[in-house]
Amino acid sequence: MNRWTLGQLAEYVKGSVHGDPSAIIESVATLENAQAGDISFLANKKYTNLLSTTKATAVVVAKEIKSTANLLIAADPYFAFTQIIILMNGHRRHPQTGVSEKAVISSSASVGKNCQIADFVTISDNVSLGDNCVLYPGVFIGADSKVGDNGILYPNAVVYDKCTIGKNCIIHANATIGEDGFGFATYKGVHHKIPHIGSAILGDDVEIGANACIERGTIDDTVIGQGTKVGDSVVIGHGTRIGRYCLLVPQVGIAGSATLGDYCAVGGQAGIVGHIKIGNQVQIGAKAAVINDIADGQIVVGSPAIDANKAKRAYSLIEYLPEMRKKIKDLEKRLDSK
Amino acid sequence: MNRWTLGQLAEYVKGSVHGDPSAIIESVATLENAQAGDISFLANKKYTNLLSTTKATAVVVAKEIKSTANLLIAADPYFAFTQIIILMNGHRRHPQTGVSEKAVISSSASVGKNCQIADFVTISDNVSLGDNCVLYPGVFIGADSKVGDNGILYPNAVVYDKCTIGKNCIIHANATIGEDGFGFATYKGVHHKIPHIGSAILGDDVEIGANACIERGTIDDTVIGQGTKVGDSVVIGHGTRIGRYCLLVPQVGIAGSATLGDYCAVGGQAGIVGHIKIGNQVQIGAKAAVINDIADGQIVVGSPAIDANKAKRAYSLIEYLPEMRKKIKDLEKRLDSK
Amino acid sequence: MNRWTLGQLAEYVKGSVHGDPSAIIESVATLENAQAGDISFLANKKYTNLLSTTKATAVVVAKEIKSTANLLIAADPYFAFTQIIILMNGHRRHPQTGVSEKAVISSSASVGKNCQIADFVTISDNVSLGDNCVLYPGVFIGADSKVGDNGILYPNAVVYDKCTIGKNCIIHANATIGEDGFGFATYKGVHHKIPHIGSAILGDDVEIGANACIERGTIDDTVIGQGTKVGDSVVIGHGTRIGRYCLLVPQVGIAGSATLGDYCAVGGQAGIVGHIKIGNQVQIGAKAAVINDIADGQIVVGSPAIDANKAKRAYSLIEYLPEMRKKIKDLEKRLDSK
Repeated sequence: MNRWTLGQLAEYVKGSVHGDPSAIIESVATLENAQAGDISFLANKKYTNLLSTTKATAVVVAKEIKSTANLLIAADPYFAFTQIIILMNGHRRHPQTGVSEKAVISSSASVGKNCQIADFVTISDNVSLGDNCVLYPGVFIGADSKVGDNGILYPNAVVYDKCTIGKNCIIHANATIGEDGFGFATYKGVHHKIPHIGSAILGDDVEIGANACIERGTIDDTVIGQGTKVGDSVVIGHGTRIGRYCLLVPQVGIAGSATLGDYCAVGGQAGIVGHIKIGNQVQIGAKAAVINDIADGQIVVGSPAIDANKAKRAYSLIEYLPEMRKKIKDLEKRLDSK
Repeated sequence: MNRWTLGQLAEYVKGSVHGDPSAIIESVATLENAQAGDISFLANKKYTNLLSTTKATAVVVAKEIKSTANLLIAADPYFAFTQIIILMNGHRRHPQTGVSEKAVISSSASVGKNCQIADFVTISDNVSLGDNCVLYPGVFIGADSKVGDNGILYPNAVVYDKCTIGKNCIIHANATIGEDGFGFATYKGVHHKIPHIGSAILGDDVEIGANACIERGTIDDTVIGQGTKVGDSVVIGHGTRIGRYCLLVPQVGIAGSATLGDYCAVGGQAGIVGHIKIGNQVQIGAKAAVINDIADGQIVVGSPAIDANKAKRAYSLIEYLPEMRKKIKDLEKRLDSK
Repeated sequence: MNRWTLGQLAEYVKGSVHGDPSAIIESVATLENAQAGDISFLANKKYTNLLSTTKATAVVVAKEIKSTANLLIAADPYFAFTQIIILMNGHRRHPQTGVSEKAVISSSASVGKNCQIADFVTISDNVSLGDNCVLYPGVFIGADSKVGDNGILYPNAVVYDKCTIGKNCIIHANATIGEDGFGFATYKGVHHKIPHIGSAILGDDVEIGANACIERGTIDDTVIGQGTKVGDSVVIGHGTRIGRYCLLVPQVGIAGSATLGDYCAVGGQAGIVGHIKIGNQVQIGAKAAVINDIADGQIVVGSPAIDANKAKRAYSLIEYLPEMRKKIKDLEKRLDSK
């Protein structure tokens, strides 16, 4: 039964209670929609004013603050709240289909223990599937590919041949892993297809969004590092290497043979050209166009992408270009007339 | 038989004929490719000159204008022409498959009358499907999801669990509805997956383009309002609320927890950051980057997005930056030498 | 067995050897990762320095250059190297499934000789499939569509009804061909769906990337010319005509009723508005926003897109806007105080 005291939750997330530790919490909600029995959270200052009107029984916050609700104070409220969501709801419970007779599994494939393989799944020759994998209907795993333990592949996700998916990976619906990259040798105007003999390798704990595309490498492999999360409709080019624990927000595009370090964050719709090197802990703004190498720890914004501090002001001044141009003309006239 | 007089068509669309009302119309065509027996239309001034060369028997226009063709004058030529296309061609006629024995339908699912459920479709536990639904091959409907009457789901469209699709909705091929949003709580560098207990709710008369992605909400639901049309490869973030009768052109991206009002139009490849509020009847240009709230009725363009009137001139002046910079230097020199 | 002398390879690609023609080559590799027995290539000057450290036995280059490796000198090193990759590896060998009993093929469809039609494929009424086609699991071909000889459709690719795919086409996983375009007639705020009676036509030798979308035409057809290659997640609007031998890099978006000439290259995430005309051999930079017609042979960059020579300098000056604005103010003050 979903029923905790606020004190129990505080203990669970190693936080402290400011208010009534015996208050009963039964579910989670946003500040705006919370009712009695709900716990909510404040991670974004923008919503601070909601603390004085929320009907939540408790709110997870970083420090003491005025509120109509009891407070659960935690060093990292967002993480604490996440732990509480998981405690109360768990992750998605998948259909326990066992191995469907309507799936087609090659006799040369190896399937681990306790896998749920749904109808209309195709597991090709020499595929190796770890334990506890969940393959939803319409999933295709190409020949010689591997999926590690606890892999979850949602409906119609496609993994081409000779790819490697690490442990605990999640591939969302309609994502494509290991398709041929956009590689053609143009000769006398005709684009000749280059066989892509590299593959696509996903480290452990990688999540790939719906309808995302991870091209296989032309010669060297495309690699997504451990713990990296890739959003919906992202496209990663052939031979690109993404480090560990990166966040690539939906619709990002990274061209081929680029390198990203560890702990990078790339905002939505940003683009990174091929053959460049992005360091560790780099942050790239939404819609940025990155065309040069970036050193460790830099934050860039804009199209073309420049240092974020400069960029915020610089790009906001585009609006004043007509005025600036007029002033220059005026100045010229004034000087001419002197 | 597809055969009307121009007079009949004019009556049907509540327009008037300028020319021969007994002219026979058998099909529709563009101004450029029309032949005798065709009716065409002029909605875009750009093509006005084609009126003097078109071989169409008739053209739908807003007002009297010189043309080689008979005129069907209608207040809204594009809408009138659409009515004529529908009259002559109807909408797509779907295969009448009935409920295929090669579909897999949970015994706990409820299927309405007169549904066409194709081979290789999966309908999970407790799904509720209205009357007259058409599910093409490879469609997946997750547990506890609902699809209203007259829903059309094209091949390999995927609806995750606990989602709600209203009446008369169309979901195109390879679209994904209700996948987990891009939500992770990062703690000590590791991105922890947040269970997404919100769902995705589509109002009545919504159309979702091919390969589009509608994330489910983290806590609050993602909502697409009635009559809103979403283009191919659009991504809508978790918890975002789109109003009624909006148009989101292909490849638009809207981050999480944003709010759009009713009757908004968002141009192709535009991006909207999370947690902002866009009013009603807002128009956002193609490729715009919207980073702030927008009031009702505003028209914005550019990256960053600014008022469209300002933007058109301002962005077109980027081209003159080198010249402007040189002039500033020249002015400095002239002043220095005085 | 994969074993050639460098001399044999040089003869095969019509190049010449600088070094030891009897050197044995067994595989291909990048300069960085090559080992003895490998042949590599230099197409991008950026990597020239690797020539002095590579362990490759041979490198394909355009002209004599200092290297630790033997040289295979070819007029077009990238094309020569591609020929060698193909010689050594061939293209992907597809599963020889024959026509699966788990595919559903309409009795009115016509299937050519030697086709491989996998499980869970749907071939609708009156479809015509050429010889030697390969259809992976989950592929859907709508009624009255045609696929030419040697077509390869990867898993879950979808072709709507009445579309035409030429010979030797490759459609990657989860791509969608011929879905309805984003076409609505808005009347009193309500968006009325326009039946799309045009179709989508792909010429011979076209390749469509994973999760790409080619809308069918509203009235006139959408056409992709012979030999054109379309990247992952590209969206082509209804009625747009793309010429022959174009390259459309991933995530490009082209709105409806646009025309592109032959031999154009469009960079990643670039957008082209509808109803404009792009000439032949036009090059459009990544992320460019093309809003006007472009004449033959032009190279454009930026958002909005302008001549590339101008653009590189102009866009790089956005960074200096704050400084420029300050200088203008300073100049005004100096003039005022004179």
